[in-house]
Amino acid sequence: MTAGANADAISQAARKAADHVMEPRLWRRLEEMAQFGAREDGGVNRPAFSDVEGQSRAKLVEWAEALGFEVYIDPVTNIFIRRPGTDPDAPPVISGSHLDSQPMGGRFDGPSGVLGALEAMEAIEKAGIQTRRPIECVSWVNEEGCWVVPGLTGSKAFVGAQTLEQAMQAADPDGVTVGERLEAMRAFTPTAKPRDFKIPATAYIECHIEQGPLLEAAGLPVGVVTGIQGTRYFRVEVQGEAAHAGTTPQAKRKDAFQAALRAVTALNDLMHDPEDVLRFTVGRFDVKPGAPNTIPDSVLFSIDFRHPDAETVRLRGDRVADIIADAVAPCVATVTETSLTEPTRFPDNMRRLAHRAIDALDLKTMELPSGAGHDAKYLADHCPTVMLFTPCENGISHNPREYAAPRDLADTTRVLAHMMVELAMREDPFA
Amino acid sequence: MTAGANADAISQAARKAADHVMEPRLWRRLEEMAQFGAREDGGVNRPAFSDVEGQSRAKLVEWAEALGFEVYIDPVTNIFIRRPGTDPDAPPVISGSHLDSQPMGGRFDGPSGVLGALEAMEAIEKAGIQTRRPIECVSWVNEEGCWVVPGLTGSKAFVGAQTLEQAMQAADPDGVTVGERLEAMRAFTPTAKPRDFKIPATAYIECHIEQGPLLEAAGLPVGVVTGIQGTRYFRVEVQGEAAHAGTTPQAKRKDAFQAALRAVTALNDLMHDPEDVLRFTVGRFDVKPGAPNTIPDSVLFSIDFRHPDAETVRLRGDRVADIIADAVAPCVATVTETSLTEPTRFPDNMRRLAHRAIDALDLKTMELPSGAGHDAKYLADHCPTVMLFTPCENGISHNPREYAAPRDLADTTRVLAHMMVELAMREDPFA
Repeated sequence: MTAGANADAISQAARKAADHVMEPRLWRRLEEMAQFGAREDGGVNRPAFSDVEGQSRAKLVEWAEALGFEVYIDPVTNIFIRRPGTDPDAPPVISGSHLDSQPMGGRFDGPSGVLGALEAMEAIEKAGIQTRRPIECVSWVNEEGCWVVPGLTGSKAFVGAQTLEQAMQAADPDGVTVGERLEAMRAFTPTAKPRDFKIPATAYIECHIEQGPLLEAAGLPVGVVTGIQGTRYFRVEVQGEAAHAGTTPQAKRKDAFQAALRAVTALNDLMHDPEDVLRFTVGRFDVKPGAPNTIPDSVLFSIDFRHPDAETVRLRGDRVADIIADAVAPCVATVTETSLTEPTRFPDNMRRLAHRAIDALDLKTMELPSGAGHDAKYLADHCPTVMLFTPCENGISHNPREYAAPRDLADTTRVLAHMMVELAMREDPFA
Repeated sequence: MTAGANADAISQAARKAADHVMEPRLWRRLEEMAQFGAREDGGVNRPAFSDVEGQSRAKLVEWAEALGFEVYIDPVTNIFIRRPGTDPDAPPVISGSHLDSQPMGGRFDGPSGVLGALEAMEAIEKAGIQTRRPIECVSWVNEEGCWVVPGLTGSKAFVGAQTLEQAMQAADPDGVTVGERLEAMRAFTPTAKPRDFKIPATAYIECHIEQGPLLEAAGLPVGVVTGIQGTRYFRVEVQGEAAHAGTTPQAKRKDAFQAALRAVTALNDLMHDPEDVLRFTVGRFDVKPGAPNTIPDSVLFSIDFRHPDAETVRLRGDRVADIIADAVAPCVATVTETSLTEPTRFPDNMRRLAHRAIDALDLKTMELPSGAGHDAKYLADHCPTVMLFTPCENGISHNPREYAAPRDLADTTRVLAHMMVELAMREDPFA
């Protein structure tokens, strides 16, 4: 099979690549990768920019070089593994995710996307397929943002959403900056050749575990992600008056707890969604002074509101402050919007391509939004982007108990391999 | 005026005693007492069994002895100041309260009752009234129960609701027991003669600031207390499941915060009282893990429920656990009753006596229950008991800003002096 083949031949090549995806090989690499920062409870603790994360990068590069792939590293130490195409100037088809984890993290959040991309590349290699465009596997640095805050450092710097200087200034809780760690991190992958940010790309595909329960509930091996939800975060401070619980009549109370309760009840109504797509969470709710026999004088609570539709995010979010102000009387509330992220919608052409691959492989799927943020969010501003989700057990993630079935991971990777071949071989990848 | 006088003469004597109450003298003693444990913010920090509280007792005894009164101390160091009657065997008429304070306490909670009783005794003395029965001022130890927990140590031991040994075993946070402090406390009042617990009493009257807003709102100088509310305290633990705020649909959530919110909403209905007599407070409400983007998996909250009527306390309190269990599904709740105190009702005859005194002095009043616990709760099991409340500014208490007006304190003390004379002189005090 060579570049420039006709549509049927390309489809056959894509199918052949998918057939070369090896479930046991992918699973073995995931197991091996989980040894870097392994927790006794079976989970993973692999902080971004730590030595143990550096060792995990070295292992990735070792696998890549054993397959004869090229390895590049950009200024913030994102690592790119490249299988060249016949056209050296063509922008690559890129897939990947991240190797860093949460402190009490699992084995799949991140690595399933990086090692899935490597597996897809190996499958294409073993199938003997020559593509016109290069294909690449990327490992973005500090997606999680647990030690160095905020996260998504690598993808954000790559697409130019932040400068290298900005990325370098972020620090972990001990005050060690990203900038101070870069040389040490480069030393883990000494053979990687330097390259710049923002290289043009044909497309970006990110495979990830769902981190939610929908695919498992539907019994599907893979999901096509419609986009990443928009999010609005608020911090609400309700101020009342402390008083004696035994002596103060209802009519005289300015009970900050009861006021906050009314506010959340009103917000529950505002955020009600019969389709159960909207996500509304009060995760923090601090009541002071917190003595059983004292009427609370202050409550601080958080609002985490997400929806895939920009209009919904705007309209409902804009009503939050007024609804709270009405509900808390005779107490008063201060509502601060701490973050606003517009929804990302992955383009139709990329989603169509995913569905075509899934159909060709006789798999079933559904579309679903991503509730969490991902590097794909920034890549979507750079090139045509889509994500594939793999079901995870009970929707549990950011938890040592996180689990995805080998079969589902392999199916997702087969879809990825199929898409990569089509994108790397078609004259017009989206035709 | 001598003992055995007829009813008219007794009424005149009571009136005369009330007229001898001196507002500036009472106020000056309150000011002087506030120097023991004075806080920079104008409040008082006078821990029970501390040296500073011992010094405040010494000051009380100094005043008493300057007036020629006798001083007694019982095994737990409650102090009794006695003005003998003509009948040495007659049980005394007792009035008092406590000298210990909250850590961030005010000047009136406790001392207004002790120094009010001393003022009433001085007024009776200065009026030259000889009573048949002795009259006494008492200072109960450790009413507040802030350092040595629980409180009401002195009144509880006096009436036999706990043994001396039990009282002595209670300790402060450093592990110092009441027993270890008794000798040091006795040393502050070396002239006080020992006497036993549970001496018979004709009646007990306790003056106290209201610690609530009702009298001030009604513009009244004094209130007749109907009793002490019954209280039931519960600790509620709601257990749910932590999950990702961005990915978990409503239908799949076991959100412990929302479950606890439903529980409190249902309890608000249960505890609704159009007469606004019932007190229902959730003062503690701890949400875990407390991260804005994590669905809470546990909430611990407190219930403080009070009502003067025993039936209401029983019926509504007994429904708490079931109502919570229904409301929290699909989460689960553990409801633990941490305390149950039956309401205390002060007897009609004592309340009638108070009203007669108030009428005789051309004052206006209202009846109201006590929201807080007081030493009078235990005395009510020992002898006919009632309390008089003095309005306090904005209902604020347990706070350095606590304030009662000199005029209202004096009026309350005049009522007390009137009642003491009637109780100490009438053949049948309640006729």
